[in-house]
Amino acid sequence: MNPLRSIIATAVGALSLFTLTATIALAEDGGLPDPGFQIVAGETALLMTDPQNDFLSPDGVAWGVVGPNVEAVGTVGHIDDLFAAAKAFDMPVFVSPHYYYPHDHGWKIEGALEMLMHEIGMFDRSDALSVDGFEGSGADWLEQYKPYIEDGATIVTSPHKAFGPESNDLVLQLRKRDISKIIIAGMSANLCTESHMRELMEQGFEVMVVTDATAAAQLPGLDGYAAALTNFRMIASHVAETDTTASAIRALADN
Amino acid sequence: MNPLRSIIATAVGALSLFTLTATIALAEDGGLPDPGFQIVAGETALLMTDPQNDFLSPDGVAWGVVGPNVEAVGTVGHIDDLFAAAKAFDMPVFVSPHYYYPHDHGWKIEGALEMLMHEIGMFDRSDALSVDGFEGSGADWLEQYKPYIEDGATIVTSPHKAFGPESNDLVLQLRKRDISKIIIAGMSANLCTESHMRELMEQGFEVMVVTDATAAAQLPGLDGYAAALTNFRMIASHVAETDTTASAIRALADN
Amino acid sequence: MNPLRSIIATAVGALSLFTLTATIALAEDGGLPDPGFQIVAGETALLMTDPQNDFLSPDGVAWGVVGPNVEAVGTVGHIDDLFAAAKAFDMPVFVSPHYYYPHDHGWKIEGALEMLMHEIGMFDRSDALSVDGFEGSGADWLEQYKPYIEDGATIVTSPHKAFGPESNDLVLQLRKRDISKIIIAGMSANLCTESHMRELMEQGFEVMVVTDATAAAQLPGLDGYAAALTNFRMIASHVAETDTTASAIRALADN
Amino acid sequence: MNPLRSIIATAVGALSLFTLTATIALAEDGGLPDPGFQIVAGETALLMTDPQNDFLSPDGVAWGVVGPNVEAVGTVGHIDDLFAAAKAFDMPVFVSPHYYYPHDHGWKIEGALEMLMHEIGMFDRSDALSVDGFEGSGADWLEQYKPYIEDGATIVTSPHKAFGPESNDLVLQLRKRDISKIIIAGMSANLCTESHMRELMEQGFEVMVVTDATAAAQLPGLDGYAAALTNFRMIASHVAETDTTASAIRALADN
Repeated sequence: MNPLRSIIATAVGALSLFTLTATIALAEDGGLPDPGFQIVAGETALLMTDPQNDFLSPDGVAWGVVGPNVEAVGTVGHIDDLFAAAKAFDMPVFVSPHYYYPHDHGWKIEGALEMLMHEIGMFDRSDALSVDGFEGSGADWLEQYKPYIEDGATIVTSPHKAFGPESNDLVLQLRKRDISKIIIAGMSANLCTESHMRELMEQGFEVMVVTDATAAAQLPGLDGYAAALTNFRMIASHVAETDTTASAIRALADN
Repeated sequence: MNPLRSIIATAVGALSLFTLTATIALAEDGGLPDPGFQIVAGETALLMTDPQNDFLSPDGVAWGVVGPNVEAVGTVGHIDDLFAAAKAFDMPVFVSPHYYYPHDHGWKIEGALEMLMHEIGMFDRSDALSVDGFEGSGADWLEQYKPYIEDGATIVTSPHKAFGPESNDLVLQLRKRDISKIIIAGMSANLCTESHMRELMEQGFEVMVVTDATAAAQLPGLDGYAAALTNFRMIASHVAETDTTASAIRALADN
Repeated sequence: MNPLRSIIATAVGALSLFTLTATIALAEDGGLPDPGFQIVAGETALLMTDPQNDFLSPDGVAWGVVGPNVEAVGTVGHIDDLFAAAKAFDMPVFVSPHYYYPHDHGWKIEGALEMLMHEIGMFDRSDALSVDGFEGSGADWLEQYKPYIEDGATIVTSPHKAFGPESNDLVLQLRKRDISKIIIAGMSANLCTESHMRELMEQGFEVMVVTDATAAAQLPGLDGYAAALTNFRMIASHVAETDTTASAIRALADN
Repeated sequence: MNPLRSIIATAVGALSLFTLTATIALAEDGGLPDPGFQIVAGETALLMTDPQNDFLSPDGVAWGVVGPNVEAVGTVGHIDDLFAAAKAFDMPVFVSPHYYYPHDHGWKIEGALEMLMHEIGMFDRSDALSVDGFEGSGADWLEQYKPYIEDGATIVTSPHKAFGPESNDLVLQLRKRDISKIIIAGMSANLCTESHMRELMEQGFEVMVVTDATAAAQLPGLDGYAAALTNFRMIASHVAETDTTASAIRALADN
C-alpha cells in the first residue's frame, strides 16, 4: 500500500474533501491514478499566478489571444470565487505576479513567447522602485481582485521573470510559513501556471490545480489550454473545478 | 530592433543554420515569433533525457502507453541520428537519466504519474552504489545507444528524481563547460523533456527542442505528445525535426 | 512577540530540548538572539555531509590539512555518537556524499579548493555506474559508519558537486518525507557543511548545527573551523555540541 | 595541466590582469592554489550586494555592529571606487538589494541574524508596490551611490530574502546577458556577500571577491569579517583588493 494513503487516513484536522479514487493499475484499463488532495488547515495555501490586466481585462495586450478562452472557461469569475472562499476560511493566499522592467528588454536570449511579450509591452513597469503609471496599467491587478490582494494578509511575492517561481521568493515564503500543500490557479494555464506547478513539485510541495480558474492563449494549431489540462492531470496530485474546490474550502471554514 | 538579432548577426564562428523568421506582430495575423537558434561551436550541447529501456524498448514497463507514439514518430531512430551527428562533430553530449531507488518508494507526496511510475517499478535500481541487476534492466540505456553514451566523452549527470534537472547536476555540468545553448531530445516529451526545457530556460540557457526525437504517453483524453508540441513551440527559442538538426550539426563539422 | 515563540509553545509531541534563550536586544549588550531548535518527531532529520575517508581517515588525501582539527575536536567519535542516537530514535538520517568522476576534471571554471581537490584526486570515482575500486577508497564511507549508512533506512542522496546541495536531490528527498527541521553535522565545516546549512535555510528549512561533529582544513592564516563556528552561530537557528544533541535525541526516544 | 590554463591562454580580447600564481601542491608547503581571474569584456560584471543605508550609513540600524569594520576597512570609499571603475569601462553592474516587507515579519522559521534583523527593523519597506517613506530610509541606497545605481544602466534585481540570490532573479538576469564572470563586493561580508559568492559558484559562474570593498558585523567572539576572508580565499577563484581590481578594470577601458 502506498504510504500516502495511511498518512492521509490519520491526518488530524483535515477535511477529506477529495475522495481518493482507487488506483487503477495501468495494465488493466489505461487509467491514470489520482493521488487526491486534502486541504489541511495551516498547511494549505491558495496560489494565484498573474491575476493581472494584460491577461484578464479586455484592455489587456494579450486579450486578443487569451480572451476567448478566458470567456469560454469563465476564468475571471472562477478566480474571484477562489479568492473569496480562501478569504472566508483565512486560508493563506499567495500571488506571484509577472512584471518586466526596461532592462528586461535587453535580454540577449529569448524564447518565442518571451520575445512576443516584450514586443507587445506586456506586464511592463517603468522601474522596480517606482509605481508611476502602474495604477490601471496592464501590469496592475484586475480591479475586482484588489480587495482580496490588498487586504494586508495576501502575500505578494517578487515578480517571476520567466514563467516559473525559480526567480522569485515564492518557495521561501511558503516554507517560512510551513505551507506544504498548494492549490494553484491563475494565468496563463500552460505557461506561468504550469511552470509554477512543475517547479513547486520539484521542490516537494503537494499540488493540485483548479482547471477552470485558468485559461491560455489559443493560436492556430497551438491550444495552450488543452496542453495545460493534459499536463495538470498527468503531473499534479489532483485536479478539480472551482465549484468543488471552493465548496471544500468553505466547508473547512464551517468546521 | 530586438537585441537578439544584432548579437546573432555579429556572432563569430557560428553557423547560421536556422534562418530567423521575420517576427510577425501578433495583432496582424496571430503568428508567433520564432527567435531561431544558432549552433555555435564550443557553446552548444546535445541533451538527451531518459534514453532508457522503460520508455524505448518493447520490453519497457511504459511501452504500453508510449510505444505507439514512439513508433509513429520514429523516435528510436531519430535519437540515434542525433547522437551520431553530435559525435561526428565532437559536440558535447549530456544525458540526464531517471532512476528510482528503494527509498524513493517511501515518498509521502506524489503526483499522478509519480505514483504510477512507482507502482509499475519504472526506472528502479537496487541502490545508488550497486549495479547488480542493472545491465539490461528497464533503467539501463537502450542497447543501441550504449556506444554513444559509454564512449568516455558523454557526460552522464546524476539522476533527476521528479521530471526536471532541479535535483541533479545538469545545470552545473553545463555551466562548468561554458555551454549556454542546448539542443534537447529524449523521453518523454511532456514530462522530463519539457521539464528540462522549462528549467533550462529559467536558468537562462538558450534552448531548442527536436520534436521528432521524443515521444510521450497517450492515454484516453490525454495526449502527452500534442501537449508537448504546443509548449515546445510556445516556450523554446526554436523547434525543428531531426533531419534539419542533424544536417546542421554535420554541416558545422564540415566547416 | 516573535511568532516563533508561540508556535513552539503550542507544539504537540515535541521535546523542548533546547531552552530558548531570551532574545537580548543588540543595542544593550551586543548579544545575538538564539532562536532555539526543537526536535519534533516526524519532522526532524539528521543530515551528515561527506562522512568519507578522504576527510576522516588518516589515509585520506585531505588528512594532512584536516586531520589535526578532526583529532582536536573529536569529530570521528562525535559523528558516530550522532548516528547512534538518531538510529536509536528512528530519526530519519540523510547522507549527502561528495564524488568526482573523470569528466569533472574537465571543468573550465574552478574555485581554489575545487582546483585543489581535483589535483589531489579527492573523492574520485571511476564512473557513476561502476563501483570498481570504490570499496575502501577515499570516496568510500569511513568504515565505522557503514553499519549506520548501509542499514537500509539511511537515505543517501546523489553526490553534491560543488559544496552545497543545489546539484543533488537532498531538498527534494527531505520534502518528500515532510522533513522541515535539520540537524547538520559532517565534513568539512566551512565548506560542504556550511554550504548545506546556507542552502537549506534559503529553502526555508529550520536548521541547527552540531559544532563538534565537524572539522575543517586549517592552513596558515586560514582557519576554516573558526570561520565555520562564526557563521554557524550567526546564521543557523541554533548551535550545540554532540553531547547535548545526542542526549536530546535519546530523551525523545524514551518518551 | 589544468584545462583552465589553456582556456585562459587562448582567450581573445581579455586582459590578463591577475597573474595566475603557480599552483603549489598541498603536500609540499601547505599552499592553496589560486586559479586566478580574467576580466573579459562582455562576459564580466560587477555585483554589489546590499549597498544600503542600514549597513553603510552611521544612521543605519546595523551601524553599531558593522560600522567599526566599515570604517577600518574603508568600505564606503572602496565600493565607490569599484562603481566608478565599472561605469568608466561600461562594465555591466548588478545590484542585489535586501528588503523586508511587513509579511516577512510573520515567518515561523528564523535563523539568529534573521531574527535580529527583523527585531531591529532592518531593511524594512512598507510594501513592494509602494515607495512611501523609502527615500532616505535604511533600505534606500547610500546617497553617494545613487548616481551609479540610478543611471539607467545598472540592473537592480528583486530583493534577496534570506542571504543568497536563490530567492531573486540575479542568476537569470546575468545569464540573459551572457555574463559568466562576476566580481563581487558589498555588504555584509560573511552573510549576503558570501552567500552570493557560494550560490553563484553552485550555478557555475566564475567568481572573485574584492576583500576590502565589504565588511561585516563583529561581535564578541564572532568576527564576521575574518570568517569571510577565510572563505573567500578558500572558495572563490580569486580575491583581490579594490586598488588592484579597479586598476584592472580601468586598464581594460583604456585598451
